[in-house]
Amino acid sequence: MIKVGIVGGTGYTGVELLRLLAQHPQAEVAVITSRSEAGVAVADMYPNLRGHYDGLAFSVPDSKALAACDVVFFATPHGVAHALAGELLAAGTKVIDLSADFRLQDATEWAKWYGQPHGAPELLKDAVYGLPEVNREKIRQARLIAVPGCYPTATQLGFLPLLEAGLADTSRLIADCKSGVSGAGRGAAVGSLFCEAGESMKAYAVKGHRHLPEISQGLRQAAGKDIGLTFVPHLTPMIRGIHSTLYATVTDTSVDLQALFEKRYADEPFVDVMPAGSHPETRSVRGANVCRIAVHRPQGGDLVVVLSVIDNLVKGASGQAVQNLNILFGLDERMGLSHAGLLP
Amino acid sequence: MIKVGIVGGTGYTGVELLRLLAQHPQAEVAVITSRSEAGVAVADMYPNLRGHYDGLAFSVPDSKALAACDVVFFATPHGVAHALAGELLAAGTKVIDLSADFRLQDATEWAKWYGQPHGAPELLKDAVYGLPEVNREKIRQARLIAVPGCYPTATQLGFLPLLEAGLADTSRLIADCKSGVSGAGRGAAVGSLFCEAGESMKAYAVKGHRHLPEISQGLRQAAGKDIGLTFVPHLTPMIRGIHSTLYATVTDTSVDLQALFEKRYADEPFVDVMPAGSHPETRSVRGANVCRIAVHRPQGGDLVVVLSVIDNLVKGASGQAVQNLNILFGLDERMGLSHAGLLP
Amino acid sequence: MIKVGIVGGTGYTGVELLRLLAQHPQAEVAVITSRSEAGVAVADMYPNLRGHYDGLAFSVPDSKALAACDVVFFATPHGVAHALAGELLAAGTKVIDLSADFRLQDATEWAKWYGQPHGAPELLKDAVYGLPEVNREKIRQARLIAVPGCYPTATQLGFLPLLEAGLADTSRLIADCKSGVSGAGRGAAVGSLFCEAGESMKAYAVKGHRHLPEISQGLRQAAGKDIGLTFVPHLTPMIRGIHSTLYATVTDTSVDLQALFEKRYADEPFVDVMPAGSHPETRSVRGANVCRIAVHRPQGGDLVVVLSVIDNLVKGASGQAVQNLNILFGLDERMGLSHAGLLP
Amino acid sequence: MIKVGIVGGTGYTGVELLRLLAQHPQAEVAVITSRSEAGVAVADMYPNLRGHYDGLAFSVPDSKALAACDVVFFATPHGVAHALAGELLAAGTKVIDLSADFRLQDATEWAKWYGQPHGAPELLKDAVYGLPEVNREKIRQARLIAVPGCYPTATQLGFLPLLEAGLADTSRLIADCKSGVSGAGRGAAVGSLFCEAGESMKAYAVKGHRHLPEISQGLRQAAGKDIGLTFVPHLTPMIRGIHSTLYATVTDTSVDLQALFEKRYADEPFVDVMPAGSHPETRSVRGANVCRIAVHRPQGGDLVVVLSVIDNLVKGASGQAVQNLNILFGLDERMGLSHAGLLP
Repeated sequence: MIKVGIVGGTGYTGVELLRLLAQHPQAEVAVITSRSEAGVAVADMYPNLRGHYDGLAFSVPDSKALAACDVVFFATPHGVAHALAGELLAAGTKVIDLSADFRLQDATEWAKWYGQPHGAPELLKDAVYGLPEVNREKIRQARLIAVPGCYPTATQLGFLPLLEAGLADTSRLIADCKSGVSGAGRGAAVGSLFCEAGESMKAYAVKGHRHLPEISQGLRQAAGKDIGLTFVPHLTPMIRGIHSTLYATVTDTSVDLQALFEKRYADEPFVDVMPAGSHPETRSVRGANVCRIAVHRPQGGDLVVVLSVIDNLVKGASGQAVQNLNILFGLDERMGLSHAGLLP
Repeated sequence: MIKVGIVGGTGYTGVELLRLLAQHPQAEVAVITSRSEAGVAVADMYPNLRGHYDGLAFSVPDSKALAACDVVFFATPHGVAHALAGELLAAGTKVIDLSADFRLQDATEWAKWYGQPHGAPELLKDAVYGLPEVNREKIRQARLIAVPGCYPTATQLGFLPLLEAGLADTSRLIADCKSGVSGAGRGAAVGSLFCEAGESMKAYAVKGHRHLPEISQGLRQAAGKDIGLTFVPHLTPMIRGIHSTLYATVTDTSVDLQALFEKRYADEPFVDVMPAGSHPETRSVRGANVCRIAVHRPQGGDLVVVLSVIDNLVKGASGQAVQNLNILFGLDERMGLSHAGLLP
Repeated sequence: MIKVGIVGGTGYTGVELLRLLAQHPQAEVAVITSRSEAGVAVADMYPNLRGHYDGLAFSVPDSKALAACDVVFFATPHGVAHALAGELLAAGTKVIDLSADFRLQDATEWAKWYGQPHGAPELLKDAVYGLPEVNREKIRQARLIAVPGCYPTATQLGFLPLLEAGLADTSRLIADCKSGVSGAGRGAAVGSLFCEAGESMKAYAVKGHRHLPEISQGLRQAAGKDIGLTFVPHLTPMIRGIHSTLYATVTDTSVDLQALFEKRYADEPFVDVMPAGSHPETRSVRGANVCRIAVHRPQGGDLVVVLSVIDNLVKGASGQAVQNLNILFGLDERMGLSHAGLLP
Repeated sequence: MIKVGIVGGTGYTGVELLRLLAQHPQAEVAVITSRSEAGVAVADMYPNLRGHYDGLAFSVPDSKALAACDVVFFATPHGVAHALAGELLAAGTKVIDLSADFRLQDATEWAKWYGQPHGAPELLKDAVYGLPEVNREKIRQARLIAVPGCYPTATQLGFLPLLEAGLADTSRLIADCKSGVSGAGRGAAVGSLFCEAGESMKAYAVKGHRHLPEISQGLRQAAGKDIGLTFVPHLTPMIRGIHSTLYATVTDTSVDLQALFEKRYADEPFVDVMPAGSHPETRSVRGANVCRIAVHRPQGGDLVVVLSVIDNLVKGASGQAVQNLNILFGLDERMGLSHAGLLP
């Protein structure tokens, strides 16, 4: 059994991690920390977990207890993993960070977007960006994994086949993305209230969103050159789900895009390229660690439209974290993640 | 492996059954029938199942193929199981019926509420009402199981401890029940449209709902005498979930109700009596085969309020059907049903 | 033109009051106060009001500016009107209080439920409970009006005909009530988040809710004697709407309840008794100052079920406040309130 | 009083038209037809209208009764206005058609997209496309008005300032649009069920949607040349609202876009250009006849992002129809349409 620690865990990625690990045959949560909820049983906070974590309570962060784990997940706001990861790594504990702390390889860029200095630039050389469809081999050898963000996961997986094949005009990529409200976390913010976010749709952060540099970094690597990306996120009145609608001009309209996408993801357990003409629904991946993709070329023009959906809390966060865990520990990559989405 | 057939299966209880059986280690779906969708792959109809049922397609009902199964589930409108169950039972196939066909033991009562003659009264003596918390031993020996309805499951489990203990004034029981829209099924009815059922609450069928005689039958057996029940169902703008708010006057206010409920369900794997003062949320059981109950006596009076929640498609239908399957075939009752609810 | 001041007004009852007054031909909002939002234009906070309140901004509360108004609405948390109403009344300004400060006639009872001493017991003798269907004549003469709460409005209007006629067993009244989330206000509370309140149903405050004494007070007056009430509120995943499902045993089953209800409300502009057998939907009153009621006696027994729906922000708060304004100033009671509900 | 007839009217644009006309001081609904609901009172079908249309019932279409009206609205599926408009026009009755029958000026194009021959090509020369912000003067003189579709209204109003100013690369316009479910109408279709459309997001008709040629026609006229448009509609889990996110490359980045948009719509009563940096929400226009627009140029590049929101049933259908009525009959264009949106 892999002994698991979780730092933070009172938020939505935390409870989702607990839900997924509860059915994982090889992992056991030994420690879960929360300063604010110390002493509270996890099942008292999250009644869906009653019967699954008897005796497990949030505890004050204690580096010794965490270092005694085989792996520690960070389900924390940014900055926390910067402060704690180094000590754990030094103790030989692997770190899987669901926050944004180690996603950008450029500490200066990180500081610019997060408005504070990077707290652990010396660890960046060890950080592997945990998108298995790109970095599976590096993940296998890693000790510090930066789990990709939700928008970046859906968007990169949708663009990758085009960029890797050198098929897109990389100067004018557009990602029009729609997220469920759980992407905003469990913080008590007015904008996330039922009566504010319900029955309404709006764009936000059009000026610039923190996921923009993360997506750009991945697309640049896939394209092998600089790219130009316009990223417009939208808040959508649903709890879970991200729908990325991606636009790119292709330089060669004779290529069979359906075949290209199917081939790219043929061996991927968690990317599902749907048949030509499909329109993936976010609900088809609710609760499941799957990215569903369809590729269109409307009216036979040179503009390609890729539709890419994930559950932001699963393939966009906690599920992908468990997928990384499986790779890291040499387990079947699908362990604990093979259930179907909850529909309806 | 238990060879499973499913009759019907294009509705919500059908897709939920497929979702649950996909992760059941001892059951395999061999046949699924639908006259209207014959030839369609189940994963084409329900994309959440893509990758889980490769090769399985709906087929025209064929009694030989069904009779070759160890067990056949009916996820059909009422009347269908009446017509087909007899032949399957004669062939030695077990039948687990999710419809209302065999829930009422009185064929005349059935005919009155369903507006047509009972189609198989001769099978009633063999039919076991599949509420494991009441009939576990009978289920073990059964060959024909009538899976309880959704309202009846939540309501009976909430009232049972009071009635079995002879504590309630049985003449004035009230069940004020709230159901998610999936309880109305996948039929294209105006009243189930997003724009009709969304952002609104209403009672319906106050005059009399088909689940009334089913609940009354169960409560009568628990009480050992006639009971008087007022049942008011409400349509609630959520997809899954039933919340039964139950009212009964107790004849002895000195009894420790919390202890009574905890004791009654101490050994039940799927009934969770919450701590005193709790308010169970339907989302805590979303996708899970659990009934969560809390018992209150507001202002210390003699009126007891029981709060009982289930997922109507799981403990209220397909999950309970799988629980019956497990009991019927001598498996661990929790097999394939031990996952936590999806929250948020 | 009636010169209107509003204290508070950043919450949902505040914006709703502004929406309604924007189309009121005889009222003009001169002052709106908010300490936290002072200087912010109301249309910047509430973009639905853009074009309707050019130039109106929140200001720091200033008793002189408020006292210069003909009437001041309080759309504040409890306690604020206690502190400020006296001075305004002394200046000859009328006060319409949407908070709970003057709803209970017994200051001790108030202190018990609100956990603090009553701040203005000397004003209670002047306070009129602003339920026009009961107190229209008193409202006409009043200078201080306590606008009823949302649950109390729907519940009292549903029970009144039975109690006034002496038809109900008053010892065992039950109000099973369902509220949209806007009833919890615009405060940034975790429980009101989209991802907490969405797609779920739960009861709350079963032990005792602050609207219980308010409802009991009204029912007691209607019945002319003590009453016993069990009140169970539920949080429902919709923005607006209250659905009260009321249960009472009638002492005489020969009375024509439909006729009784129709007669009681025949002259009421904002109470709509629906035809026998109806099930009112909350959406039918969305945005409208209407209470829709249906009365049932299921299975011909002696238990009466009354269904009563309102929009909690309109007939349950701001609309009723405007209705009181109209009565107070001798206007047509329907002025500014005659629009139909928004459906779908 | 203008005597109004409505053909069709059982759908969502019908009930919305009735809601708006109920508060219109100069219009009176004399006839409303529906073959399927003939004899049913409109308030029985739409309880939000109880008290507003006493005595008005759906009747079998009768051309004499309709021709006796000053104006007839068609709130019908396509094809119906083709069949009936000619006769009404011949009788001197004005026609305001909310369907798609007269929106495309090219009958062949219409036939291609609607899969049937155009039923009244001889009337096309008289048909005025009822977008007041473009065709106000023509509307004033018209006798047959084609009310624009919902997507076309939001999308054209967002693109117009750029195209009229000759600022955009017209070969690569993108409209990524999100619609509430009421856009699909009140028909009992599985895809519009609460449990299918709720808690999920999906694109649809990426291959080609009937609003594409309508939008293209308008943009072509604004640009004065051929344009290339990719239009991707999405189904969003809300009842009302359209959010168009529009992308265009500008050929001159020195132009002050905010000023351009503000100037273009300075005199428009129903187009609201929000301050720079804004993100309009669909809920801000719920129930209101307003299009709210914000214009962005993210990261200072040459790609412009326009955000444009409307209520699909109001400015996208019935409200715009009433706006046309007002223009047509020389009334204040805002008559009956000046109320604020319903928020929350």
